[in-house]
Amino acid sequence: MSEKLIGACIIGQSGGPTSVINASAYGAIAAALAAEEITQVLGADHGITGVLSDTLYDMSKEDPEELKLLKNTPSSELGSCRYKLADPDVDDTDYKTILEVFKKHNVRYFFYNGGNDSMDTCSKISRFMEKSGWECRVMGIPKTIDNDLIETDHCPGFASAAKYIATSCMEVSCDSRVYPTGQVTIMEIMGRHAGWLAASTAIGTRFGAGPDLIYLPELDFDMDKFLADVERVFKTKGNCLVAVSEGVHFADGTFVSEAKASATDGFGHAQLGGLAARLADAVKARLNVKTRAIELSLLQRCGAHLASRVDVEEAEMAGRVAVESAVAGETGKMVAFERRNVGGDYMCRTKLIPLGAVANAEKKVPLEWITPDGNFVTDDFIDYALPLIQGTPERPTVSSLPRYAHLRKVKA
Amino acid sequence: MSEKLIGACIIGQSGGPTSVINASAYGAIAAALAAEEITQVLGADHGITGVLSDTLYDMSKEDPEELKLLKNTPSSELGSCRYKLADPDVDDTDYKTILEVFKKHNVRYFFYNGGNDSMDTCSKISRFMEKSGWECRVMGIPKTIDNDLIETDHCPGFASAAKYIATSCMEVSCDSRVYPTGQVTIMEIMGRHAGWLAASTAIGTRFGAGPDLIYLPELDFDMDKFLADVERVFKTKGNCLVAVSEGVHFADGTFVSEAKASATDGFGHAQLGGLAARLADAVKARLNVKTRAIELSLLQRCGAHLASRVDVEEAEMAGRVAVESAVAGETGKMVAFERRNVGGDYMCRTKLIPLGAVANAEKKVPLEWITPDGNFVTDDFIDYALPLIQGTPERPTVSSLPRYAHLRKVKA
Repeated sequence: MSEKLIGACIIGQSGGPTSVINASAYGAIAAALAAEEITQVLGADHGITGVLSDTLYDMSKEDPEELKLLKNTPSSELGSCRYKLADPDVDDTDYKTILEVFKKHNVRYFFYNGGNDSMDTCSKISRFMEKSGWECRVMGIPKTIDNDLIETDHCPGFASAAKYIATSCMEVSCDSRVYPTGQVTIMEIMGRHAGWLAASTAIGTRFGAGPDLIYLPELDFDMDKFLADVERVFKTKGNCLVAVSEGVHFADGTFVSEAKASATDGFGHAQLGGLAARLADAVKARLNVKTRAIELSLLQRCGAHLASRVDVEEAEMAGRVAVESAVAGETGKMVAFERRNVGGDYMCRTKLIPLGAVANAEKKVPLEWITPDGNFVTDDFIDYALPLIQGTPERPTVSSLPRYAHLRKVKA
Repeated sequence: MSEKLIGACIIGQSGGPTSVINASAYGAIAAALAAEEITQVLGADHGITGVLSDTLYDMSKEDPEELKLLKNTPSSELGSCRYKLADPDVDDTDYKTILEVFKKHNVRYFFYNGGNDSMDTCSKISRFMEKSGWECRVMGIPKTIDNDLIETDHCPGFASAAKYIATSCMEVSCDSRVYPTGQVTIMEIMGRHAGWLAASTAIGTRFGAGPDLIYLPELDFDMDKFLADVERVFKTKGNCLVAVSEGVHFADGTFVSEAKASATDGFGHAQLGGLAARLADAVKARLNVKTRAIELSLLQRCGAHLASRVDVEEAEMAGRVAVESAVAGETGKMVAFERRNVGGDYMCRTKLIPLGAVANAEKKVPLEWITPDGNFVTDDFIDYALPLIQGTPERPTVSSLPRYAHLRKVKA
């Protein structure tokens, strides 16, 4: 047990939101409010940008019942950002500002909830504080629908998105085969470099409804093979439903959607989109059949009404464990998940991973979970994903519509 | 009470599917199986095309438990079609075929579930049978997410789509304001000539989350005013969420999406799509802000996991009442809904409308329910729609995914 470290904490949310990132915030906020060592619980407005501008909210001023509703509120209630900190050896301006703000509020705990880019931010701040001699325990809380963080069995946010995607794909599979003439339907699903989300459409096939073909960015995309696959399915079944990751790319690395990509986001990734329409056009040109392009867009990452109870509970646990571990003396770590099979039942427990080991790395779908013909996933993937999407969390509603948290956001 | 008419019945589904069209089929099938007068209950494969090809399924061969699951199965389980019957005075080939099939199976009852085009089909068949002297009672069962049938307070299918749309818009409104830089998000919603579905995004605003601007096809679309509206909201709030009907059109009647429309469906309507992307481009060009285009596409009409209990129950009732009314002697009518306010509570009862009065007409959102500045709807609309989206129907699941009906489809 380390020495007691007394001071304020900051909790920040970063990167693309999920259905359960607020559940992690709730877990962290509730644990921090309960911790004797933590004198003030501050929520950063729009992640690290709120720290830089000293826009911090006093979480003790919130109604506890509203805070609890964070567990069912999609997106990042404190606001998110895609701000990339410079290499502190090249430009330490931001870090000095952060240090000033930490000193002003006596911040001794920093909790940052995000994906691999955010873990990089977290890692840099941790190292800068250590170098500066300002004792501050820094912990990362994982989050990403993409499920691409390494060293963890899975990521909070993935399962709820997977459940939304699997359910929506089951529904579309019912709808898309309704006319006698048949059609080819292309569903475009998020996933820049890892295909976990598109693969999740396969889960429904175990229960009778889902896609016929799945294409992931783990393999090179071959347009001729794709069109031949679609033609074969369409000729056999009279319809064809395709799930495709937005990040599928040709053998030379160019994204299939590339010609349409122009803008870039703050991290230098090309903004993808329009892939489904492009593939539908290619199908129409080659096979002359009716096509339909569906992009799940933001819907898949904020579909909290279909959240997985397992995911909500684990996300909350990740936030709580980050705080409890830091109070117990840990720093420079990310909370990760370890899967255990207990008498055939899925169980999940947490472990801690060095931030440096997680930052900027990506975990892909194992190639052995992709079928040999490269257009579907194996039962191993479904066995992996199915336990994660289980259960329905409490979902407070008003007039049959979701009741979200309304925070006061009182500045500290 | 009319004389008893003994014979088989045919039940067919037509037009775009909904989340609850199968609930109407269930209501009709269950009532028909229970009716002494009905000797055989036949389900038409892909609507009227299945009648024309004599592809009829014997519903008594289905497992009753599977039939019951139709209440929770989206899309048209028997298959749908968009086949337009000719004017019988010009070409009666199809009608003669239908008459042959009716005679072959001694069909004395015909129930057709669809929108205004389908009521036209229904009406034509009814008149042809009468002229031919083949006694057959023909009843229409309403269905359309578009809610544009006249002479009925609302249409089965609308409420579940509205609930899906309102909920999704609430979620997107959380997600789309997450970054400090802000963005303009355009959600494209179905509705060719009537804006009921896009208007439904407004429901969430009564509960704290929803769009800032709504554009319906009931009014002419003015691009300059639209861009000025968006700019004003964006400058005030730092974000802007727009809901727009796919069918918005300029003053000269051309669809805003028109340049992208090329194919046509069986009824001669231009196939719309890509409107959201086009408006997002216009916003980006004028205001130079981050934009995001979201098309709800098929998702909104098959989102049975968010179905309204009221809608499921009313859809089933419509099917049941069609059969019971026909057995009691009615013909040439469509089941319609009449809203009653009983002690402040919403109640719905059925009435019968002549098919000819419904066919090929469209009910639009009343202009007085659109705000004077033409970019939102009034409380009157929300008061109208809110009672319809209430309640959660039973939703059988397996492993937290929906369990749909699996019909045997045994040919008669």
